[in-house]
Amino acid sequence: MSLALNKKELAEYMAQVFPQVHRDFEVVELTEETITMRLRVEERHLRPGGTVSGPSMFGLADVCVYALVLARKGRQSLAVTTSSSIDFLRKPEGGADMIAQCKLLKLGRTLAVGDVLMYSEGSDKPVARASMTYSLPPEGSAASAFG
Amino acid sequence: MSLALNKKELAEYMAQVFPQVHRDFEVVELTEETITMRLRVEERHLRPGGTVSGPSMFGLADVCVYALVLARKGRQSLAVTTSSSIDFLRKPEGGADMIAQCKLLKLGRTLAVGDVLMYSEGSDKPVARASMTYSLPPEGSAASAFG
Amino acid sequence: MSLALNKKELAEYMAQVFPQVHRDFEVVELTEETITMRLRVEERHLRPGGTVSGPSMFGLADVCVYALVLARKGRQSLAVTTSSSIDFLRKPEGGADMIAQCKLLKLGRTLAVGDVLMYSEGSDKPVARASMTYSLPPEGSAASAFG
Amino acid sequence: MSLALNKKELAEYMAQVFPQVHRDFEVVELTEETITMRLRVEERHLRPGGTVSGPSMFGLADVCVYALVLARKGRQSLAVTTSSSIDFLRKPEGGADMIAQCKLLKLGRTLAVGDVLMYSEGSDKPVARASMTYSLPPEGSAASAFG
Repeated sequence: MSLALNKKELAEYMAQVFPQVHRDFEVVELTEETITMRLRVEERHLRPGGTVSGPSMFGLADVCVYALVLARKGRQSLAVTTSSSIDFLRKPEGGADMIAQCKLLKLGRTLAVGDVLMYSEGSDKPVARASMTYSLPPEGSAASAFG
Repeated sequence: MSLALNKKELAEYMAQVFPQVHRDFEVVELTEETITMRLRVEERHLRPGGTVSGPSMFGLADVCVYALVLARKGRQSLAVTTSSSIDFLRKPEGGADMIAQCKLLKLGRTLAVGDVLMYSEGSDKPVARASMTYSLPPEGSAASAFG
Repeated sequence: MSLALNKKELAEYMAQVFPQVHRDFEVVELTEETITMRLRVEERHLRPGGTVSGPSMFGLADVCVYALVLARKGRQSLAVTTSSSIDFLRKPEGGADMIAQCKLLKLGRTLAVGDVLMYSEGSDKPVARASMTYSLPPEGSAASAFG
Repeated sequence: MSLALNKKELAEYMAQVFPQVHRDFEVVELTEETITMRLRVEERHLRPGGTVSGPSMFGLADVCVYALVLARKGRQSLAVTTSSSIDFLRKPEGGADMIAQCKLLKLGRTLAVGDVLMYSEGSDKPVARASMTYSLPPEGSAASAFG
């Protein structure tokens, strides 16, 4: 078990393939089984009342697992989210960045599953919990993961 | 069982409380137990490859159930998403709007649950399925649904 | 699109491969995209207070999607549950059988997803909603779906 | 924050209210935020091929969160499962007991959420991950959590 991409390579590759969103996210820490990701909270991530929106938290969780699969499998890998469950636990603080701690529970031949806890920076009470399942199309396969 | 807000009142109220996002969404049809909602797909909803992003679909499903609870309970109602599950079934088409068909499975005293099927407009194969649970704080209560 | 097994063949095959549980379940109706399944509620399915237990409802939903995949793909097919979400909506009645209505949302090359609504017989208010994702190992593959 | 019931009191109370199932489970460890629970795997928990069944794992996860809420809130507490998501990660071993490690992510006024990792005893690779949401009816309320 080892990383195909280190933290710097991962950040560069994400900036290249996701130009729209990569400025929202920062890879804080990367190991073979975990990733810590920051969502830089800005106006567009907020809901009335100043809390971070549900779609922003969904996106944060999704990026975590995607990035961790990428770091393990390498740039040629394809991975498509197939299912997700999220529990919203507490009101996030709008004035703080969000920090996601993601753990890879499984990286199989065809499926990857990651678990994510999200916090408002500076708090130790989780704001949300998510799990994301990714389908991994066979390497060299032209078929999409939706096949 | 009846609607506290009709389709026009619902759209006006959402425009007022969600100025950031209401232009993305259009209430297509509203009954006491169902709502059909359009996501006007634009550049910012897309991912590389031209497909609608996961967070955009999460947001569409979330808005559906929120709007339906609002239409039933009225403007004074508070509702907070507490949990969600989504299955991504097929690749959405980037060039088409998304149409969500939502059914209210439960509108209880403290919890509401809605089920949502999402389609690329013009197709009858669902792109995603979601269920969203909302917590409904007691009326007149100062306590948040996160309590 | 057609059925590899009809209703009678499906029931016989399930009796053969799941001798422990098949007497709990009855295939009520089968089409290419839907199945209706009865759970014959007995003492062992109940919780104190006389309601049907959560595990029994989980099992009912699981059997529905499994059986529908089997009916479509045939006896040689392998399918393993990989994820599931359930919402419990109302208290089931202990004195009534449970009827599940399952719809196949997707039957792809590697994944199948089904949606299930469960009712206490005689009521039109759903007691629970579930979605189940099955992994379908490549035919002829020795690899398990957990690979 | 403290426990209303210690490990011994919890086990005794569960034996009393769940006579059907308590012999399946053993509280291994209890803290204010975590519980470790053993499922004593017997013939009736197995599926063909000798693996632990999905409903048995669902039941194990459900019991964990229920027991932890009970230990915190006390015997008078009512708690009803309202939603659940499970990811099945690896094939469990039929010949080994299952050990569940559960963490309480939230214990609010009206909702409790717990996260559960399940292992075949002796292995450090999780077999399944679950999250369970419980609705907590107001104390002294005659209304059910399904209200």
